[in-house]
Amino acid sequence: MDPATVMLYPMTSHETRLRVRYAETDQMGIVYHANYLIWMEVGRVEYCRAAGLRYKDLEAEGINLAVVEAECRYLKPARYDQEIAVVTSVVEASPRMVEFRYDIRDAEQGETLTEGRTRHFFVGRDMRLCKLPEKYRVIFGPKEPGTA
Amino acid sequence: MDPATVMLYPMTSHETRLRVRYAETDQMGIVYHANYLIWMEVGRVEYCRAAGLRYKDLEAEGINLAVVEAECRYLKPARYDQEIAVVTSVVEASPRMVEFRYDIRDAEQGETLTEGRTRHFFVGRDMRLCKLPEKYRVIFGPKEPGTA
Amino acid sequence: MDPATVMLYPMTSHETRLRVRYAETDQMGIVYHANYLIWMEVGRVEYCRAAGLRYKDLEAEGINLAVVEAECRYLKPARYDQEIAVVTSVVEASPRMVEFRYDIRDAEQGETLTEGRTRHFFVGRDMRLCKLPEKYRVIFGPKEPGTA
Amino acid sequence: MDPATVMLYPMTSHETRLRVRYAETDQMGIVYHANYLIWMEVGRVEYCRAAGLRYKDLEAEGINLAVVEAECRYLKPARYDQEIAVVTSVVEASPRMVEFRYDIRDAEQGETLTEGRTRHFFVGRDMRLCKLPEKYRVIFGPKEPGTA
Repeated sequence: MDPATVMLYPMTSHETRLRVRYAETDQMGIVYHANYLIWMEVGRVEYCRAAGLRYKDLEAEGINLAVVEAECRYLKPARYDQEIAVVTSVVEASPRMVEFRYDIRDAEQGETLTEGRTRHFFVGRDMRLCKLPEKYRVIFGPKEPGTA
Repeated sequence: MDPATVMLYPMTSHETRLRVRYAETDQMGIVYHANYLIWMEVGRVEYCRAAGLRYKDLEAEGINLAVVEAECRYLKPARYDQEIAVVTSVVEASPRMVEFRYDIRDAEQGETLTEGRTRHFFVGRDMRLCKLPEKYRVIFGPKEPGTA
Repeated sequence: MDPATVMLYPMTSHETRLRVRYAETDQMGIVYHANYLIWMEVGRVEYCRAAGLRYKDLEAEGINLAVVEAECRYLKPARYDQEIAVVTSVVEASPRMVEFRYDIRDAEQGETLTEGRTRHFFVGRDMRLCKLPEKYRVIFGPKEPGTA
Repeated sequence: MDPATVMLYPMTSHETRLRVRYAETDQMGIVYHANYLIWMEVGRVEYCRAAGLRYKDLEAEGINLAVVEAECRYLKPARYDQEIAVVTSVVEASPRMVEFRYDIRDAEQGETLTEGRTRHFFVGRDMRLCKLPEKYRVIFGPKEPGTA
């Protein structure tokens, strides 16, 4: 990002909680690693809701957040029945894309279990790239410099 | 079903195979029970394909098989990396519905692990009940008595 | 069950809530039918917790609830982002087994979306049938007649 | 890696195929992005099998491949019923870790849909780091320089 761009996000981060389901474990006795991507989905949907946008309303207008990149670093395994905190923040945004970062923690101890990020393009119902309508930009991303 | 109705199905049963994924196990060291419903989906899709119908073509015409009932009896657990045979058959059908039965076996020994059934109504894109077009009826269900 | 047996359950039912995840939908635009079994797992784990038993503690003692039967009747599809209430109750229990019933509802309207039941045997770490230790029987099932 | 180390892998890559399940789609009408991680698991298990190692045998000896990093770049969506080729290769290995790379393609056209990588540490049953026994090193990783 251009360091000259002043970005003002409406929220710095949002925390949501969930409890590990038995279905999410595998025979190693820990959470199967693909499930963290699903928890990140929960995190960003709740981030949006907290910022005033229900993701389903965006979709009803024909705009989807297509995932173009996803990344996880697994530090410590989550286990069955553990209470998990997903801390979600927006690290980059433009009218065409948004990147979220996630800190997945043990809810009680606060210890990070997995860190991740997902990068999304805005696409229409036809899966073609599109721009996020003005009214939603405050949710995901930077206000223009000097307009705050 | 009326015993007077002579039903002639184009196939009696179809067998398809799959291998248990690590993702499908849970911390009990066996396959998590919800996954058998997914394997049944694989079974009926391959049943249809073998009978000449790609399920996605049916869907492209605006017809879906909505699941209205599902049932499993778990006899013996499936385990990671096991090769599984899903034997699928149609046990009842009409222009409005179809019921599949499944015998999920160890592919090598032939031993049944789980038995199941799913009952489906044909629905349109609006999720309303509809009739299966004539041309597809031979796939799922009985020919009219005397027309064989 | 022997009609002469008076059964006293500590709870009649327990309600827990969850929100439909995007990952749980399929391309029909509704919740994929296997996910209801996972929600039932959430329901019975929370039933147990409310009755004083963490399922993971039971497992730590070497006792599992192996699913031997599962059944769903799908009445109305659940959709993305919907808030769901899972109402769980025990309908039969003995030292060797327990059967749960589930009423999966729209949390707001109260309308039933799916009804289900699961039947479980108690098994040890070796997957062999076992009896539930006395101290836990009050959780799942009937006190002996006359001992209430 | 030390550039002086000459690494000779027993295989350069292995291709395995699978067909997209309905359960793997979401309401965007495409494969839900977390499922690619599961397909990568299928890819690396079949890579190992082709190289002479059943992953379950490794696990039976008390050695697991714990995932420490995972990454996906989604280029083009996979769709229901599509036949998929997962091309798996080892890009780095040592007695303590292995990194796989995956090229997930449309099986017919050969077009890449998603690229990914996963990095694993070898761990024992207690989840502690361990070294891969000598006899298995030929599977994952480099032969010693000069020993080829």
